[in-house]
Amino acid sequence: MTRFRLLVEYDGGPYVGWQRQENGASIQQALEKAVFAFCGERVATTGAGRTDAGVHALGQVVHLDIARACSAETLRDAVNFHLKPQPIAVLAAAEVGPDFHARFSAIGRRYLYRILCRRAPLALERGRAWWVPVPLNAAAMQEAAQHLVGRHDFTSFRSSICQAASPVKTLDRLDIEQQGEEIRIHAAARSFLHHQVRNMVGSLKLVGEGRWSGDDIAAALAARDRRAAGPTAPPEGLFLTEVRYPS
Amino acid sequence: MTRFRLLVEYDGGPYVGWQRQENGASIQQALEKAVFAFCGERVATTGAGRTDAGVHALGQVVHLDIARACSAETLRDAVNFHLKPQPIAVLAAAEVGPDFHARFSAIGRRYLYRILCRRAPLALERGRAWWVPVPLNAAAMQEAAQHLVGRHDFTSFRSSICQAASPVKTLDRLDIEQQGEEIRIHAAARSFLHHQVRNMVGSLKLVGEGRWSGDDIAAALAARDRRAAGPTAPPEGLFLTEVRYPS
Repeated sequence: MTRFRLLVEYDGGPYVGWQRQENGASIQQALEKAVFAFCGERVATTGAGRTDAGVHALGQVVHLDIARACSAETLRDAVNFHLKPQPIAVLAAAEVGPDFHARFSAIGRRYLYRILCRRAPLALERGRAWWVPVPLNAAAMQEAAQHLVGRHDFTSFRSSICQAASPVKTLDRLDIEQQGEEIRIHAAARSFLHHQVRNMVGSLKLVGEGRWSGDDIAAALAARDRRAAGPTAPPEGLFLTEVRYPS
Repeated sequence: MTRFRLLVEYDGGPYVGWQRQENGASIQQALEKAVFAFCGERVATTGAGRTDAGVHALGQVVHLDIARACSAETLRDAVNFHLKPQPIAVLAAAEVGPDFHARFSAIGRRYLYRILCRRAPLALERGRAWWVPVPLNAAAMQEAAQHLVGRHDFTSFRSSICQAASPVKTLDRLDIEQQGEEIRIHAAARSFLHHQVRNMVGSLKLVGEGRWSGDDIAAALAARDRRAAGPTAPPEGLFLTEVRYPS
């Protein structure tokens, strides 16, 4: 058996999410089917981030074990061939040691959340950003976001179905950048709770609209109650951009 | 009757092109249907650029005449409402004088052509760029492109079904910019022949691959024969970005 690590990009729009589910097509299942079509092996793939339905990835990391002898390049090209015409692509593949685990070896994850603020609905960027028809104050959002950076109990920003053992996480970075009508939110942590990025974005949008202050963000965090924070931002603006491992 | 000018964005993927045709849905028809749904008037819309099937617009300009009294803002919002869920959006609307003509008043058009050079197929950018699985030499393309800038007979880069009276056009700008794995080609002229941008890009790609030199581009232009130039680049990489009018 050889273990391979794959770097994977996908449009999450047509899928129920990364993880295999009864109710529809998942990215995990699509990858496993493509591997089966290539080598006839029923492999189990493990992803670093279990992205939800509609969430995209520019840099998901996946590992899998294959009995058949093949090069990483052959695996990459063959899986891409069998994934056609689905919007999933293996950007790179590498042979790794048997101790490498896409999820448990990861020491950092980065997400990007895109908001497009304009009056007109989205045409070319539809499904690739959250459409917000009013301008948002990015500077106020940036200031408020700093209340969330650091080690905290993120219960207020955690989905009720989150399976993590502890709600305490260390948020390394939460930066808001404005580029014309686009607001880009960069989040980095060792790991995130379920819906944590989307729930933080949903609350920061209230700050951007002037409905919440930075103190409201701090109070929501301190409440340790999901009902104290803002709504969950929609999935289509979220991109898993990078997963980091010890070098 | 009041004449309005609309700034329109669309994903050309699902359409037969800007222009109304027998064989499928056009952007023009979708806009006219939305106007009818709003005010019950069967208007004729005129676009500045007759984009082909699959070609996108970030800044198409359209004019139309409406009998019903309404503000430009109302028209913009109502047309966007009735366009749903199609990937077409009116970014802005303005009342203009009866002499304004989206096509004939235009004094400049700008296009962007996007190429993504990478081994893996496109997932998130599928339908939004030309996928080229090998690296291209952008510097060589930039140098070769300068042979095409200026006033020339562009017969070699003109579709056989082009209806323009003359093949002589003045190309103001053709610049190739590299950003990581993306090559962005910027083209500007008062007007273009049918398929001119895509045919120029198809030939420049041969230069990028090292199969053609800059002299080959010059020779293709001088031949005044479509067969002397390279193939037509696919529509999904092309975006009409801007139309200019006298201020």
